[in-house]
Amino acid sequence: MSPALEAALAHADAHLDESVERLKTLVAIKSISTDKAYAGDVRQAAEWLVRDLEALGFDASVRATPGHPMVVAHDRAADGPHVLFYAHYDVQPVDPLNLWHTDPFTATLVNDDKGETRIVGRGTSDDKGQLLTFVEACRAWKAVNGLLPLKVTLFFEGEEESGSKSLPGFLDANREELGAADIALVCDTDLWNAETPSIVTSLRGLVGEEIEITCASHDLHSGMFGNAARNPIQVLADVIASLRNPDGSVAIEGFYDDVRELPADIAAQWKRLPYDEAAFLRGAGLTTPAGETGRSVLEQTRARPTCEINGIIGGYTGDGFKTVIPAKASAKISFRLVSEMDPKKIRAAFRKHVTDRLPPDATVTFSEHGGSPAMSVPTDGPFVKQAAAALKDEWGNEAALIGSGGSIPVAGEFKRVLGLDTLLIGFALDDDRIHSPNEKYDLRSFHKGIRSWLRIIAAFAA
Amino acid sequence: MSPALEAALAHADAHLDESVERLKTLVAIKSISTDKAYAGDVRQAAEWLVRDLEALGFDASVRATPGHPMVVAHDRAADGPHVLFYAHYDVQPVDPLNLWHTDPFTATLVNDDKGETRIVGRGTSDDKGQLLTFVEACRAWKAVNGLLPLKVTLFFEGEEESGSKSLPGFLDANREELGAADIALVCDTDLWNAETPSIVTSLRGLVGEEIEITCASHDLHSGMFGNAARNPIQVLADVIASLRNPDGSVAIEGFYDDVRELPADIAAQWKRLPYDEAAFLRGAGLTTPAGETGRSVLEQTRARPTCEINGIIGGYTGDGFKTVIPAKASAKISFRLVSEMDPKKIRAAFRKHVTDRLPPDATVTFSEHGGSPAMSVPTDGPFVKQAAAALKDEWGNEAALIGSGGSIPVAGEFKRVLGLDTLLIGFALDDDRIHSPNEKYDLRSFHKGIRSWLRIIAAFAA
Repeated sequence: MSPALEAALAHADAHLDESVERLKTLVAIKSISTDKAYAGDVRQAAEWLVRDLEALGFDASVRATPGHPMVVAHDRAADGPHVLFYAHYDVQPVDPLNLWHTDPFTATLVNDDKGETRIVGRGTSDDKGQLLTFVEACRAWKAVNGLLPLKVTLFFEGEEESGSKSLPGFLDANREELGAADIALVCDTDLWNAETPSIVTSLRGLVGEEIEITCASHDLHSGMFGNAARNPIQVLADVIASLRNPDGSVAIEGFYDDVRELPADIAAQWKRLPYDEAAFLRGAGLTTPAGETGRSVLEQTRARPTCEINGIIGGYTGDGFKTVIPAKASAKISFRLVSEMDPKKIRAAFRKHVTDRLPPDATVTFSEHGGSPAMSVPTDGPFVKQAAAALKDEWGNEAALIGSGGSIPVAGEFKRVLGLDTLLIGFALDDDRIHSPNEKYDLRSFHKGIRSWLRIIAAFAA
Repeated sequence: MSPALEAALAHADAHLDESVERLKTLVAIKSISTDKAYAGDVRQAAEWLVRDLEALGFDASVRATPGHPMVVAHDRAADGPHVLFYAHYDVQPVDPLNLWHTDPFTATLVNDDKGETRIVGRGTSDDKGQLLTFVEACRAWKAVNGLLPLKVTLFFEGEEESGSKSLPGFLDANREELGAADIALVCDTDLWNAETPSIVTSLRGLVGEEIEITCASHDLHSGMFGNAARNPIQVLADVIASLRNPDGSVAIEGFYDDVRELPADIAAQWKRLPYDEAAFLRGAGLTTPAGETGRSVLEQTRARPTCEINGIIGGYTGDGFKTVIPAKASAKISFRLVSEMDPKKIRAAFRKHVTDRLPPDATVTFSEHGGSPAMSVPTDGPFVKQAAAALKDEWGNEAALIGSGGSIPVAGEFKRVLGLDTLLIGFALDDDRIHSPNEKYDLRSFHKGIRSWLRIIAAFAA
């Protein structure tokens, strides 16, 4: 280990309390991006970050967009490669508030029954804590070594939790400034487990659809029309039931056409990974995997496509009872895509599946809610290898090169607009309850996250 | 025709405008019984009726129940038989409000394209307009003849649209007072068609059930858990889809065990009745009968049991999209019963059907929303014959003796608690859009309804 890295790690260890204090300050700013009432708080968070980065010697600024602002900061004094680090400083709403054990905006250290210290509060994990792991790494390096060992551009978004609407336009308008980097780093993902780091090498795509089934011209009385009038809730239920085969696979024709099986070596690596399927399900109050028979939970949630019903409504849903046959019923349905699945093709196949199954007197309207393909990151470049080695040095265990079940559109945009590959490295855990009450980030995630980045930037600069 | 009847008919004709004004006043009182927010309005409607009946010389009172109040009024000054007239003064909710062309609580006279005048508003048909046909008949008779020709007890319910929960207890507690009548009359049913009166001789029963399916302990992110976590909306849709066979029959085991085929003579009479299946469906914007293959619409809607989904909700149902796998989803489901079907047995068979089909990690809770058996009325007594003759005098056509698709539990309760047979005679039409936006009652229904009751009470008294 270089003396510069050793000194920076020691400094990060010695000043961890101060790093936690800064996280508390950032958590206290209510930067909920989806709710217009908090627009001032979102801006305040951006301004706080800029002030902090300027104090660290970055050339930092709040950058306006049609939505919430971005933060861009440069420290390009060093020779060596240039990294673009991305995270987001906005957070999800905190309702239902009554389920929080502590105030969501007061990051609170709580010791759990395994002796782990948790930092509890909205955004501690997603994504303010993860964002600060990199900033604190830069701070520790500069404190002991003066100059960073490589060029760093920080790019923080303020509307990741509300659809990233300004992101493509902002990247496009600032293509030269942001695209000058050699590699992008995104810190918004999980560790493999509390002992094992990970680099995410694939992300599922997403197709969102809303369908509305209409039968009668108006709501009918079930005593008068029951049996004879087509019931749109029944039609919708029949359609939804038809989406899955008895073996749990998706029954839409051609759905799996462009799905590749995992390469044998990756599948073998995934099998070796320590993974407790039962514990994963137990965290959600479940015991038995649903979905495709014969596929592991790991494969199902990270490397297989899915069709999920996200919402349904029709008829009378208030208190009591109303013997109505409604005119309409609707559902929101989403598909996670993998491999080469084409969002347009999947959307069309789904629409055909539904339309083909409509009985007489039932009509359907479809509304589109976004579509993005899956993406994957090449695993054979020097940055991946250096990052994996640095992570192993810090954690003792090999970094898992693993697919993620979610969709992180920014990685796709970095490739599409800036031409940059992205390494997705994060330190969150499955049980961090992101988007839910009592979100937490382990103090250990925060501390070792800072140390991991120190090792990674040292490795890149070497 | 007796001079007393002739004078009363003439008076009813001459004062129809005033009768309509009273209907407008009653419609304006928002007596929605299923929504607690309107409890004060329900009471106000009862009080308005009592004041009006007292002015007419009835001994009238608002009578408390554990739910909404009943109205009971007596005019027993005459000799002759004693009729117990029942109707209900509560109404269904009015949502969705944006589909109404006029204010639901402002009864509005609208001329349709056939030259018919419609009285449009919530409850104009079901059941405030029908209720007032009898009251206005009594008013006309008393205005010209002083005394009614027979003993009349009026009994108006305020929670028919919300399950009639207080009805059995109230009848039981007032058995002597209400059971002193010789025959019950219920005005809550339809004409056969605009030219043909009807007496309903059978009613379907009703079982209401609400089911809630729970899978995970909390809402999950579909990117993290999609495929592997059981989705309660999918489970609910699978269950609902399993309720019907491909031929449209209900798939619950034993569902048809106690269903009798129509007797041959009744089936023959129904075949003779003027009935336009296509027109009936067209009135609801439909073209093709759903339900059991090979059964006529008439039979399906009046003499066959059914299973209808009346409401469904789960997951995210607001604007936009949320990639959630919800923890819960629920539906309201009702069954119409015929012949000897036992509500308890049907409820148990349904619950078993659902429970047997639950996959791992799905649990269900059931809530009961009322249950009543089907009932039938003897067609050979003197009252039926007198009423049928009086109806023929008014309408020119024979009264159809027909089964009704709806459930009017009060007729069963009158038999069970008071030992009274019931004649169900009403003047509504298929296209009255009861329980829906733009509910209407034809002015002709209202007018000839009043005249029909005048002829019936004269016939009973003769």
